[in-house]
Amino acid sequence: MVHNQRKLFIKETDVLEGLILEERIWEKTEGRVSYHDSVEEMVKRMREDGMSNVFDRWTLQEKIRCKFCLQGLSCQLCSQGPCRISEKGGQDKGVCGIGADAMAMRSLLLRNVMGAGTYSHHAYEAFRTLRATAQGKTPFQIKDAEKLKWMCEKVGLTTGQDTNTMALALADFLEQEMGKDIDEPSVMVEVFAPQKRKKLWKDLGIYPSGVVHEEQNCVASCLTNVDGDYASLAKKALRLGLATIYTAQIGLEMVQDILFGTPAPHEVDVDLGIMDPDYVNIVFNGHQPWVGVATLQKARLPEIQEKAKKGGAKGLRIVGSIETGQELLQRFEVDGVFVGLMGNWLAIEPLLATGTVDVMAMEENCSPPAIDQYAEKYQATLVSVSNIIGVPGLQHQMAYHPAQVDAMADRLIDLALDNFKKRKGTVVPKVPKFTQKAIAGFSTEAVLKALGNRLDPLVDVIKAGKIKGVVALANCSTLRNGPQDWNTVNLVKELIKKDILVVSAGCGNHALEVAGLCNLQAIEMAGSGLQEVCRMLKIPPVLSFGTCTDTGRISMLVTALADHLDVDVPQLPIAVTAPEWMEQKATIDGVFAVAYGAYTHLSPTPFVTGAPQLVKLLTEDVETLTGGKIALGDDPKEAADHIEAHILSKRKDLGLS
Amino acid sequence: MVHNQRKLFIKETDVLEGLILEERIWEKTEGRVSYHDSVEEMVKRMREDGMSNVFDRWTLQEKIRCKFCLQGLSCQLCSQGPCRISEKGGQDKGVCGIGADAMAMRSLLLRNVMGAGTYSHHAYEAFRTLRATAQGKTPFQIKDAEKLKWMCEKVGLTTGQDTNTMALALADFLEQEMGKDIDEPSVMVEVFAPQKRKKLWKDLGIYPSGVVHEEQNCVASCLTNVDGDYASLAKKALRLGLATIYTAQIGLEMVQDILFGTPAPHEVDVDLGIMDPDYVNIVFNGHQPWVGVATLQKARLPEIQEKAKKGGAKGLRIVGSIETGQELLQRFEVDGVFVGLMGNWLAIEPLLATGTVDVMAMEENCSPPAIDQYAEKYQATLVSVSNIIGVPGLQHQMAYHPAQVDAMADRLIDLALDNFKKRKGTVVPKVPKFTQKAIAGFSTEAVLKALGNRLDPLVDVIKAGKIKGVVALANCSTLRNGPQDWNTVNLVKELIKKDILVVSAGCGNHALEVAGLCNLQAIEMAGSGLQEVCRMLKIPPVLSFGTCTDTGRISMLVTALADHLDVDVPQLPIAVTAPEWMEQKATIDGVFAVAYGAYTHLSPTPFVTGAPQLVKLLTEDVETLTGGKIALGDDPKEAADHIEAHILSKRKDLGLS
Repeated sequence: MVHNQRKLFIKETDVLEGLILEERIWEKTEGRVSYHDSVEEMVKRMREDGMSNVFDRWTLQEKIRCKFCLQGLSCQLCSQGPCRISEKGGQDKGVCGIGADAMAMRSLLLRNVMGAGTYSHHAYEAFRTLRATAQGKTPFQIKDAEKLKWMCEKVGLTTGQDTNTMALALADFLEQEMGKDIDEPSVMVEVFAPQKRKKLWKDLGIYPSGVVHEEQNCVASCLTNVDGDYASLAKKALRLGLATIYTAQIGLEMVQDILFGTPAPHEVDVDLGIMDPDYVNIVFNGHQPWVGVATLQKARLPEIQEKAKKGGAKGLRIVGSIETGQELLQRFEVDGVFVGLMGNWLAIEPLLATGTVDVMAMEENCSPPAIDQYAEKYQATLVSVSNIIGVPGLQHQMAYHPAQVDAMADRLIDLALDNFKKRKGTVVPKVPKFTQKAIAGFSTEAVLKALGNRLDPLVDVIKAGKIKGVVALANCSTLRNGPQDWNTVNLVKELIKKDILVVSAGCGNHALEVAGLCNLQAIEMAGSGLQEVCRMLKIPPVLSFGTCTDTGRISMLVTALADHLDVDVPQLPIAVTAPEWMEQKATIDGVFAVAYGAYTHLSPTPFVTGAPQLVKLLTEDVETLTGGKIALGDDPKEAADHIEAHILSKRKDLGLS
Repeated sequence: MVHNQRKLFIKETDVLEGLILEERIWEKTEGRVSYHDSVEEMVKRMREDGMSNVFDRWTLQEKIRCKFCLQGLSCQLCSQGPCRISEKGGQDKGVCGIGADAMAMRSLLLRNVMGAGTYSHHAYEAFRTLRATAQGKTPFQIKDAEKLKWMCEKVGLTTGQDTNTMALALADFLEQEMGKDIDEPSVMVEVFAPQKRKKLWKDLGIYPSGVVHEEQNCVASCLTNVDGDYASLAKKALRLGLATIYTAQIGLEMVQDILFGTPAPHEVDVDLGIMDPDYVNIVFNGHQPWVGVATLQKARLPEIQEKAKKGGAKGLRIVGSIETGQELLQRFEVDGVFVGLMGNWLAIEPLLATGTVDVMAMEENCSPPAIDQYAEKYQATLVSVSNIIGVPGLQHQMAYHPAQVDAMADRLIDLALDNFKKRKGTVVPKVPKFTQKAIAGFSTEAVLKALGNRLDPLVDVIKAGKIKGVVALANCSTLRNGPQDWNTVNLVKELIKKDILVVSAGCGNHALEVAGLCNLQAIEMAGSGLQEVCRMLKIPPVLSFGTCTDTGRISMLVTALADHLDVDVPQLPIAVTAPEWMEQKATIDGVFAVAYGAYTHLSPTPFVTGAPQLVKLLTEDVETLTGGKIALGDDPKEAADHIEAHILSKRKDLGLS
C-alpha cells in the first residue's frame, strides 16, 4: 500500500487538512488494511490468488483522486456541465450560475435522498411483510403481540381486535404514514418525537410529512435550476432526516420486532472464524431479514439437516453477513445452525475467499459489485433476493415477495446443496482461526429491563458522574481514514475510558463486536465509573443496538430520557458519532441527528470543504437553530476529547459536576 | 468567446468525437451565443453592465472541464471515493468494485430519478389542485367537463355524477396511481399504453408500477453497493421512464386540460420584444401554471388595470417565461394583458436585463441560481411560488397551496405594483425590437379536429409520401453544441425540408416558436409534400405541442396512430429527437422514448462515452428488446439524414414507397 503517493496529488492543504491527517494515520498503520487479524489473513490469500480487492483498489484510486470532487466543487448534473468551482480561474459559479455552497449541499442532499429512499424501501418491504403475515401468506408469525398492541395504542389504532386484524391495520397505517403530505400531519412524528422538539421543528419549517413525500420534494429540488440556495437545501435535508427516522425507520424496526421478536441481550459469535467448510453455508447479506429468517426457520428442521448430511456435509448452516446478519443476530440465538455474524462490508470479499460459502443471498447494501470473480474462483453461488440488487455475475435473481418467501427459502437451500457438491473437492478452504464473543440484542426495552423498568437508575449514575454521558455510534466502515474499523474501534476505546457509555449500530457496531468491545471482558477497558456500572448491570461498556436502521431505536431511548427529565435533547450529556461513515444511509442518519439536536461527529469529512458558508452553517450556525451541529475530525483521540468536552459542558449546564 | 481553448484540454479524441464536432460548430458561429438576435442584443448590455451571465460562464468552464466526468467515469457517492475509471492507470474499477459501465449508468439513472421526481411533483400539485377546485377552494373552474368525463370513462370511474364529484374521484384515482406498487397493476398504463407494447413490456420486466414506487426502487438501487450491473440499472431506467409518462405526465396534462382547457391552435406573440417597460410586468417562470393562471384571471379584471394605471403604469401585464409561459400560451389567448412568451431558459438573464420585469414568480425549473444580481441591478422582485424553489436572494417565498392561490395572486400583484414604483425612474429599460408570431396549442384533439376527427387523412398523406414521417422533438436548450437553439433550429429546418412533420415540446419548442418555425410563413421552408399538406390543413410544418410534460401528450397521438393501424410503435415511420437536451427531465423523456419503441436522437452525447458496453446497449442492443434505441450525433444535418434514413426504412418495411 503506497498511501503517501497521495501527497503528490493533494496540494491545497488549507481545505484538506483531513486528508493530511488521514495520511498520518495510514503511515502509523503501514502494512495493515484492517483492524481485524482475520481480514489481514484473508487479504494475503486474496493477493496470492491475484484477486482484485477493495483494499488494493483503494490504493490505486489514491493516485487519481479529484480534488474538486473531494471538496464538493464538481457538478455533472446537466449537459452544460461538468462544471467545477475554482476561485483562482474565475470560475466561482457553474454555467447555470450555481455557487460553491449550493453545489456541495445539493450533492449532499441527493445522497441524503438515496439514503432515505433505501430506508423507505426497507420499510415498504417490512410493512407488506406484516400485512402478508397477518393474512397468513408467509411462514412468519406475530412473535411479539404485546409490542403490536403497544404500537397500535401509541398511534391510536383500535386494539380490541384479534392479533391479525391489528397487524393489518398497523401495516396499512404505517404505509400511509410514509406517503403523507403537508395537508395531513404525520401521526408517527407526533407520537415519537421528543415533546420539546415539536414546536421548534414547526417554527423552523422542518416538521416533516411522510418520507416518500419529502423524498419527492427533495429530489425535485435537486434538479438543475430549481434550488440553488445552500441554506434552503440544508433545511430540506434536515426535514428529510426527521421524516426518515419517524415515518420509515421507527415503524420498520417496530414491525421487525413484532414479526421476529424484540431484541434482548444474548451472547453470540462473530468474526470470520465462525465459518466451517464442512457445512453447507448460506450467507445472508444486506439489510432486510425476511428471506434470512424464512431460511433459518427451515434450516432448523431436522429433515433439512439430514438432506445436507446425505449430500456429504456435516449439516446446513446460516451465516449472518453485515446488517442482515446483525438483524438475525439481535433476535435469534446462535446455535449449530445459525452460527453468528462474519463482520461488516469490507469483510465480504475476505469471507468469499475462505472458500466456505455456498450461497451468497443478497438484498440491499452492501452487496459489492465485483464479487463475481470471487464466486467463480471460490465456487460460491450469487443470488439476489431483492428487486434492487444488481451484482454482475448473479447466477439467480429472485425479487422478494412476502407470499413467495417460503419458496425462496427452499430454492436457496437447493442451490446451496448443489453448490456444496461442486465446492467440496474443488476449492481449498482457508478459515482464519479468529472468533469473538459479543453480547448482541440491546433495545430500549432491554435497557429498561436491566434497569428494573425505570429510567431513574440510569439518570442516577449519570448524575453521580459514574457515567459522564452517552454516545450513540451509527456507522459504516471505510478505508478513507486508515485500515478497516481502525477509527471506529480506537474512538470507542477512548470514549469508554472516559466513562462514556457507547450504544452502537450499523457496520460500526459489527466492527466493535468483532474487536471484542461488546462483551463483558471489555469492561476492563472502561474507566472506573463505567466499569462499576457495567459490573453492576452485567452489561458491556458498548451496547450493541443493532443496525443503522436502529438509529431510530436509539433515538427512542434518548427521547424517553429527555421526556423523563423534562428537558430538550440538546440539554442532555449525549453525542452522536459516525467515525467511519461510508454510504448514503449514513448521511441521512447524520442529518437526522443534527435536526434532533445532537452534537454529531462525522469522519471522514463529507465532500463540502470547498463550501465555506455551508461548512459554517453545518458546524456552527445550525446549533443556534436546532441545538445540534456537525463536528469534524479524523483523529480518534482528538474526536473523543471534543466529545467529552461537549458532554462535560452539557453536564455543567444541567448543574452536574 | 474563446471556444477553441477547449482543444488544450481535450485530448482523447477517440471517445470524445462529439466534443470535437462541437468545436467545429462553435467555430462556425464564432461570436454568437444564441440563434436569436434578441438575446444577442441583450448579452451586449449584460456585458457592458459587467453582469456574470450563463454564456460567459460557459466559456470560463470550458477551461476546466473534467474528462472523467464527461465520459461518466467519475463517482462521488461514498466516502471511499471520489473514484475515477482509468484503464491506463489500472483503475478499471472504483474502490467498491464498480466498473465503468455501471458507474455511468447509475449516474444516468440517478438523473432519470430526478427528472421523474420533478414530473411527479408537478403531477402531485396538479391532482391536489383538481381536488381543491372540485371542493370550491380555488379560483379555478372545471373548464373542460367533457374531457373530465372522457378521462373518467377511460380509467373506469363512474361518470353519472356531477362534475365536482367526478373531479374528486379522478384526483384521488390519479394520486393513487402514482403510488401503486407491483401488487396492484396500474390502470393508467393499461389504458394508455399502445396495445401491442404491453406484452413486450411484461416479458422484458419493464411493465411499470406507479412512478413514486418506481422512483423509490431506483433511488435505492443507486446506493453504493446495491446495483452494480449496468444492464440491470438500464432496465430500471426504462421501467421508470414508462412509469413517469403513464402515471404522472399523462394524468397531469389531462388534469391541466380539465382545469384550464384543452389546447387548441391559436396565434401568439413570442420573443423578448413582447416586453413593454411602461407596464407593470409579472413574469411567470418555471413549469406549473397554477399561480400564473390565478394571477392572469385577476389581471384581466378592470379594477386591477385601474390600480396599475393609478400607480403610473399603462396597465398590468402577465408575461410567460419558459415552460410556465408555454402552459399559459397553449391554453390562453394573447391579448393586452397576457402578452405571450419571452423564450426559453437561456433567455431568462437577458429578459431580466431588459429592465422591464417587476415580479419574477418562480416554480420548478428553470429558475437559475444566479439571477439575484440581475434583480438588484435591474430592479426586479424575485418571488418563489413553490416549495421546491430556492434561488439565492429571493425576496419573498410562498409555498404553493391550492387553497391559497387566490391570496398568492393578490400578493404578487401588490409586489409588482410596489416594484414598478421603484423600477420606474431608476432603471433605463432596453427592449430588443424583435417579436415573432407562432401558432401554439396543438394537441391530439386539435390534430384530430383538423383532420375531421379521423386519423385516416394523416395516414393517407403519410402513405402517399407527402409526409414521409413524423418526428417528435422534446428538448431543452444548451450551449454544449453551439449557440442557444442553434442545433434545434437547424435540425428542424433540415427535417421539414425532407417532408418530415415535426411536433415539438419543451424549451426546444420555444426555440422553434421564437425562430419563426411555428407559423404559416414557415411553410415556405418545408419540402413540397409537406408544404402541400400544411397549406391544405392551414398548419405550420412544426406543430407546437407545448412543454416537455407534453411528451406524454405526443405519445398519445402516436399510440392512437399505432393502434389505428394495428401495428407496434417501432413499425411506424416516426422518430424522437432531443437535439439540445440539458437537464434531468429530458433524460427521463429520452429513456421513455426508447422503451416506447422509438428511434431517439440525443444531442449532446450523455456522459456515457467511457462505458463501451453501456453505449452498445443503448445505441444498438436495446433495439432488439424494445425496438427503440438511442442515436447520437451533434451535427444537425447528419442527424437529420440519419432520422430520414430510419423513417425511410420503416416506410419500406410497411410497404410504402
